[in-house]
Amino acid sequence: MRVDLNADLGESFGSWTMGDDAAMFELITSANVACGFHAGDPVTMLDSCRAAYELDVTVGAHVGYRDLAGFGRRSLDMSFDELFGDVLYQLGALDGVAHAVGATVDYVKPHGALYNRAFHDAEQASALVAAIHAYDPGLPILGLPGSELLKQAQDAGHPVFREAFVDRAYLPDGTLVPRSQEGAVLHDVVPIVERAVRLALKGEVVAVDGTVVRVDPDSLCIHGDTPGAVEMAAAVRAGLEEAGVELTPFA
Amino acid sequence: MRVDLNADLGESFGSWTMGDDAAMFELITSANVACGFHAGDPVTMLDSCRAAYELDVTVGAHVGYRDLAGFGRRSLDMSFDELFGDVLYQLGALDGVAHAVGATVDYVKPHGALYNRAFHDAEQASALVAAIHAYDPGLPILGLPGSELLKQAQDAGHPVFREAFVDRAYLPDGTLVPRSQEGAVLHDVVPIVERAVRLALKGEVVAVDGTVVRVDPDSLCIHGDTPGAVEMAAAVRAGLEEAGVELTPFA
Amino acid sequence: MRVDLNADLGESFGSWTMGDDAAMFELITSANVACGFHAGDPVTMLDSCRAAYELDVTVGAHVGYRDLAGFGRRSLDMSFDELFGDVLYQLGALDGVAHAVGATVDYVKPHGALYNRAFHDAEQASALVAAIHAYDPGLPILGLPGSELLKQAQDAGHPVFREAFVDRAYLPDGTLVPRSQEGAVLHDVVPIVERAVRLALKGEVVAVDGTVVRVDPDSLCIHGDTPGAVEMAAAVRAGLEEAGVELTPFA
Amino acid sequence: MRVDLNADLGESFGSWTMGDDAAMFELITSANVACGFHAGDPVTMLDSCRAAYELDVTVGAHVGYRDLAGFGRRSLDMSFDELFGDVLYQLGALDGVAHAVGATVDYVKPHGALYNRAFHDAEQASALVAAIHAYDPGLPILGLPGSELLKQAQDAGHPVFREAFVDRAYLPDGTLVPRSQEGAVLHDVVPIVERAVRLALKGEVVAVDGTVVRVDPDSLCIHGDTPGAVEMAAAVRAGLEEAGVELTPFA
Repeated sequence: MRVDLNADLGESFGSWTMGDDAAMFELITSANVACGFHAGDPVTMLDSCRAAYELDVTVGAHVGYRDLAGFGRRSLDMSFDELFGDVLYQLGALDGVAHAVGATVDYVKPHGALYNRAFHDAEQASALVAAIHAYDPGLPILGLPGSELLKQAQDAGHPVFREAFVDRAYLPDGTLVPRSQEGAVLHDVVPIVERAVRLALKGEVVAVDGTVVRVDPDSLCIHGDTPGAVEMAAAVRAGLEEAGVELTPFA
Repeated sequence: MRVDLNADLGESFGSWTMGDDAAMFELITSANVACGFHAGDPVTMLDSCRAAYELDVTVGAHVGYRDLAGFGRRSLDMSFDELFGDVLYQLGALDGVAHAVGATVDYVKPHGALYNRAFHDAEQASALVAAIHAYDPGLPILGLPGSELLKQAQDAGHPVFREAFVDRAYLPDGTLVPRSQEGAVLHDVVPIVERAVRLALKGEVVAVDGTVVRVDPDSLCIHGDTPGAVEMAAAVRAGLEEAGVELTPFA
Repeated sequence: MRVDLNADLGESFGSWTMGDDAAMFELITSANVACGFHAGDPVTMLDSCRAAYELDVTVGAHVGYRDLAGFGRRSLDMSFDELFGDVLYQLGALDGVAHAVGATVDYVKPHGALYNRAFHDAEQASALVAAIHAYDPGLPILGLPGSELLKQAQDAGHPVFREAFVDRAYLPDGTLVPRSQEGAVLHDVVPIVERAVRLALKGEVVAVDGTVVRVDPDSLCIHGDTPGAVEMAAAVRAGLEEAGVELTPFA
Repeated sequence: MRVDLNADLGESFGSWTMGDDAAMFELITSANVACGFHAGDPVTMLDSCRAAYELDVTVGAHVGYRDLAGFGRRSLDMSFDELFGDVLYQLGALDGVAHAVGATVDYVKPHGALYNRAFHDAEQASALVAAIHAYDPGLPILGLPGSELLKQAQDAGHPVFREAFVDRAYLPDGTLVPRSQEGAVLHDVVPIVERAVRLALKGEVVAVDGTVVRVDPDSLCIHGDTPGAVEMAAAVRAGLEEAGVELTPFA
């Protein structure tokens, strides 16, 4: 059994630091690197790509809304053309930076509010798919099973990979319990590690009502920028390795 | 005889328009396209790359300081690493956008205050050269003869091309009369067209003291965003064609 | 009879110009001046406040979303605290600039997507009202009759004024036909001037189905930044004056 | 004997935190609060003004260059009008936010590269003084003795206050050893506390060559955002109190 471990990294900006990237890069196999619109200045992007290259971590473009003040966590109405352009711009920018240090951008994952919106908003999802496809029809998209994003990508013949969240509560239909509801986020190490192992070994997760849901993840998403993120990531990684799961990039 | 005609285009941003790009794209052979830091949002960049592709105009990356409020015309202290990153980011971003519409980025020219600073500032010039070289060691730099930028690029074995300004007064050493001095900018059509023709045919320009200066330009820079820019560009193009000069991209 | 004529001015940014403010300031009685978040750099704000002061035009704070790339025309999710802070910030900034040239800020009108959202979004409307009230409980809000914004302001005992649009089609309930529908915007001078006069004299407007709707406007909004805006504004002003309507600021 | 203790606070931006403001507000008497151009979003500004108000800390406007990516630490060429406008804008913005929570802005101190540039650049210093004077001719400026900023303010009859740095090496002429030189910044607690006490009690500091320099500070500047800043501030405060110095705002 094998699985990928992805986290959001490269989220510093200028003099502001976010997360302990140095520690996280040692623990994950795929890094969602911010591209400058919601976080990530060019120097941070260079540092992230260098670290990824040296540690054999796969680099993904973590494209987001142009909203530094809101960290890309605020839903924004955009036309198809605007989002199409913004995604291409960010993909190219990260690619340019990665290329300079010998790295490559091997997948795309939308960030924050754009990720959430692309779950259900057909137009924004289609702009994302169109931009990524125009950039490189073979560049995989990492997303949530059941999302508009993955559906439209598959309809376009674009490669997709599925992720699961080790610390989020699931509904019986395989979607996430909204963050606004109590119990939406798990905090304790033991159940999170157990969930990670079950997801990796059996591809399934237990929903809030007890239903066992099949999600077959290619990658497990862990947090990289919350307090205790490094300890949690280390525990998840150790738990997976003890269970005989090989950690390896999906892309 | 042949020469290239370059102008700064794609300088609109969001709802704000600058210049009459549609008209200018018909008149020039190389477009310095803004990359989002001093001007040029992704939709504008897409439009510019599409227009260039359809009209066989060569696209150059017009990289600038991160300063929308100042349009990249205000000199900014930056570390080598910061400028190295900002240039790579902009190159990649324009390349990503261009690629989506079938176009390619075929040269680089710094914009505004960065252009002026790279004339004499060895550190900023070296960061520019290092970034462009890391991006693509074969991607030409267009600049002013005698500048630190071109000197350092040549020392690094990086391809360079030389431009001349058809509407700027020259000093006997081949540098430009500073804009702060009277007579720094020519405004009348006839002498500007005569100058363009002489530059194209003989590679020389008459300085303010009457000295004939050899500048051997590969490209002539004309303004794209000033009042009357289209009429001036049309006159220069017509004058060159009447003199038997072939207008063709340098890159 | 008297009425106010308001328009969005001061929407230039850095090197980018929008609209013919010099001409518009001669025609209107209240200027909605952009505060830097969706448009309007500090120099433009200074110029707008100076022009308003010299021509006895009332200055209103045209507060908007922090979105230069989208000109504040894209709806943005924001928390109460974020919008509360952003509105206070913009009010203070314009006030500081106005004060330096002897002008004062005498009302507030939200811009673009924020204006539209505050029509129906109770939380964003309440953050707007709370911020304006905290800034100055006597500072009038100019808005659309029937909007959440005006309702909540009135509930808070905050002074409000009502505006009508001379070039927008109305529904029988007094709301505007959405821009996405055909015929939402009127373009011809004669019906627009007639509408302006009827609004000023009788406080009523004819909806798309022929219903006569009472809207009792304190101010008529005309466009300041579209092609032909100056001619239209001049015609509306002339028509109102010919009909004996006195043009005077509402605030 | 009495002295003021000032530090740069309110330097977070959106999701990015800088420094431990909660702890620092307990230790200082004047807070230089960032105004949004180099750091400090409106919510952070509200939080800072609230904390200052509750703890009887004086609020100063920490105006800076419009450069979030560079944290206002990169020197920027600006015209008089641009800097005049940017300073007014920031002053008004902070005032608007402060007013909403019952606080007031009681002095101004330029930040980072603007502070350094206003030491020797007559034009930028004059734009700063003109803007602050236009805003409020009684609003004190806090700066370095010997700077163009304080000289021009005094020439304009504008109130000024003098600060000294407890952890910076001094030259015999009372200016600071440039950060680029070794030994420019002191790091050990004991000599820093001794220096603070001597500055407060005798108004003098020992320069790198042993000369005793008279600087007569109204305020001592301590760092608020470096590692160990809280411990250092606590030690300086304790040292001053033990020496019988009363800590009280200068403004």
